[in-house]
Amino acid sequence: MGTVEAQLAEIVGEKNLLAGDAIPEDFTHDEGLSLEPGKPAYVAKPATAEEVSALLKLATEHNIPVTARGSGSGLSGAARPSDDALVISFERMNAVLEIDSDDHVAVVQPGVTLLELDEKTSAAGLSYTVYPGELSASVGGNVGTNAGGMRAVKYGVTRNNVLGLQAVLATGEIIRTGGKSAKTSTGYDLTQLIIGSEGTLALATEVIVKLHPRLAHGATLLAPFNDLDEVMTAVPRIISSGLAPHILEYIDAFTMAAITYTAELSLGIPDAVRDASQAYLVVGLENRDSDRLDVDVEIAGELLSELGAADVYVLEGPSARKLIEARENAFWTAKSAGADEVIDVVVPRSAMSKFLTKARELGTASGSGVVGCGHAGDGNVHLAVFQKDVAKRDELLHGIFAFAMELGGAISGEHGIGHAKKAHFLALEDPAKIDLMRRLKTSFDPAGILNPGVLFD
Amino acid sequence: MGTVEAQLAEIVGEKNLLAGDAIPEDFTHDEGLSLEPGKPAYVAKPATAEEVSALLKLATEHNIPVTARGSGSGLSGAARPSDDALVISFERMNAVLEIDSDDHVAVVQPGVTLLELDEKTSAAGLSYTVYPGELSASVGGNVGTNAGGMRAVKYGVTRNNVLGLQAVLATGEIIRTGGKSAKTSTGYDLTQLIIGSEGTLALATEVIVKLHPRLAHGATLLAPFNDLDEVMTAVPRIISSGLAPHILEYIDAFTMAAITYTAELSLGIPDAVRDASQAYLVVGLENRDSDRLDVDVEIAGELLSELGAADVYVLEGPSARKLIEARENAFWTAKSAGADEVIDVVVPRSAMSKFLTKARELGTASGSGVVGCGHAGDGNVHLAVFQKDVAKRDELLHGIFAFAMELGGAISGEHGIGHAKKAHFLALEDPAKIDLMRRLKTSFDPAGILNPGVLFD
Repeated sequence: MGTVEAQLAEIVGEKNLLAGDAIPEDFTHDEGLSLEPGKPAYVAKPATAEEVSALLKLATEHNIPVTARGSGSGLSGAARPSDDALVISFERMNAVLEIDSDDHVAVVQPGVTLLELDEKTSAAGLSYTVYPGELSASVGGNVGTNAGGMRAVKYGVTRNNVLGLQAVLATGEIIRTGGKSAKTSTGYDLTQLIIGSEGTLALATEVIVKLHPRLAHGATLLAPFNDLDEVMTAVPRIISSGLAPHILEYIDAFTMAAITYTAELSLGIPDAVRDASQAYLVVGLENRDSDRLDVDVEIAGELLSELGAADVYVLEGPSARKLIEARENAFWTAKSAGADEVIDVVVPRSAMSKFLTKARELGTASGSGVVGCGHAGDGNVHLAVFQKDVAKRDELLHGIFAFAMELGGAISGEHGIGHAKKAHFLALEDPAKIDLMRRLKTSFDPAGILNPGVLFD
Repeated sequence: MGTVEAQLAEIVGEKNLLAGDAIPEDFTHDEGLSLEPGKPAYVAKPATAEEVSALLKLATEHNIPVTARGSGSGLSGAARPSDDALVISFERMNAVLEIDSDDHVAVVQPGVTLLELDEKTSAAGLSYTVYPGELSASVGGNVGTNAGGMRAVKYGVTRNNVLGLQAVLATGEIIRTGGKSAKTSTGYDLTQLIIGSEGTLALATEVIVKLHPRLAHGATLLAPFNDLDEVMTAVPRIISSGLAPHILEYIDAFTMAAITYTAELSLGIPDAVRDASQAYLVVGLENRDSDRLDVDVEIAGELLSELGAADVYVLEGPSARKLIEARENAFWTAKSAGADEVIDVVVPRSAMSKFLTKARELGTASGSGVVGCGHAGDGNVHLAVFQKDVAKRDELLHGIFAFAMELGGAISGEHGIGHAKKAHFLALEDPAKIDLMRRLKTSFDPAGILNPGVLFD
């Protein structure tokens, strides 16, 4: 049998195994801002579910912690390995296995990036409608964190768009869950349980995703408002209109200045309007028919004016794309501005204004900066927190998370808990739920090898 | 403490407890066709989550099997109690607690019927878009079986439209899962795990459902086709068109004759067309704008003709409603025609034609009748099976289910497994998945009191 290293090399082939000092720094962390890198012992790059199965059997046998890795673009440390862990990198399992235009699904391996899937589905006139903003992210990673993004207001998040999985249990069994149909009522929904479990329950080796017809025509409206309250009052009215926007984002004045500056983006907003506007609403509309889109844009513009927008800018092709990209890159803007943590609290959208007022108050009281933007349609608030002192920052985050939960929200809408927010999760969540989740974890992974330290201690 | 009966009466009040012979026959079964009624020992009608909690604690302590009951309209026996069971009837927990037009959600108790929810949401210009066809069904029951229905092709099934729960664990803990937002990535998704678990994991005592704007204008198109193959070829083309139908149903000629006869419904189809048509496609379109709807109806009509429809009938108000109702009542039509079982297999929609050909072949070979209709957009096939001999019927069903699974489908799309299909489920499903589901069951319900005999032995 030989050493563990020899056995791992036997499974994936020598050139697909890295060990010790040969492991590049990239495998020691994800994009989370506040975590120290881990020191994995091995990185294995399997090519098949059978190889993943053999790796997990070996890991269970030798009690080796295992961390799965897609593109490493996560923000909560779910892909940061424990010391001495085996990292399973899905970079070689990156094939789009099938674009099925009859069932409107794609079958992909977990290492496929969203960019590649977007290109392949586009060629078939279809779209995988989960756009979390980072196109280098992998589908497997998106499954791990239940990624969301801007278009969730119309199309839902990852869990609403994944119909089935092939997954490997910690003990090596390869199972298939769900299928190509949106309906099933045949036992417990293992697909949904694995989605969002951050690599702690099972590793997805194949993902069946739902595809939608790609609508040919789109428009982006930008509306400056006096303050966030007005934005938040406008949101439900826009949804009730039946215009079915696929993007409904708010951006605060500080973040708008930062992202447009960074993107060298000029939106043509007069200084007087900009100076009077504390918050912006971005509305994305789409249609298969360009005339209908034009009418919808007009209706939306009138509605926004009625609802108090200082003005309404209809952005054309390149500047619309640039604004959306700049918004998607808000994380990188925050990072380069020196943010110490980014969080993505979720609250009922009617409570967003109340939540943000309190979050800023807590920030001010602790001498921290708290600015952001977010998915206004979903109540999903992305905040950049500027506070170097770890203890102060932790206290601030605790206060912010606690208030979000008081409002009926949750700690994370789409980034996950990972290592980064675990302490807050364990401190703030109902102990009965934590206990239940621990029992579920043990049902899947009796030896506790899958991503130890993520979600639970 | 007194007897169990006295303790139960203490919890819910004497007039809300029935025992032994005082239990009406209605509580001994659901609407499934093939099961013998159970003989429950008690029926308790709690008014609050706290009462449900006390009931479950007592049941766990005394090892009393518990079956939850909504309206009793299920078709797989999930609400059929075991002998000596405690039935928890949610008929008194029937309040719509909140219609929230800002967050576009409703918060309801499990005993609320779909009819009542439809009336209340309608008044607010909103809609709960899960219409499984039986408006007397309860929301709690729908959560139990992950009910689907006709509009799933556009809006998804129960699990896509329930955002959060209050639920009571077998050991009495009352937990809250999810919330009013569509996004969460904060630990395992307990909401989704409880949905579709047929009362075996936890009992929902409050349900947060997503609401959509109620679109004012709708139309129904009926297209006769030569055969089912043509119908099934048409379906993906209609979906790719971007017309976004909310109904996409196929009805075979036999079932069409039966439901239109029973409903005394005249659709104005000439005899020559009817005689040449083995299958019908029903397409439902809706829009907030009546002009757009008219254009869409025209486009859909042309598309159906191109795709081989013998003719296209645009049904107006009353006859459209009557056809949809007749289709929804197909179960009752099958029952009164003497069907011995109804099933709702799901397969990839591209495989429906192949599946139905085989199902009919198996039926013919065993001297059984197999006819039906179904949700063509979802690959969800409703079949009425006419075969009195239990052994022959079981063999036939086994063959039908096995073939569906071979095609990548599942035993049930929306009715659930219950008692009725358990033997097939346990025989045909991957043992690794069954074992995992059993462990999950134990994680929730260590004493095994919740709906024993459903899903597992």
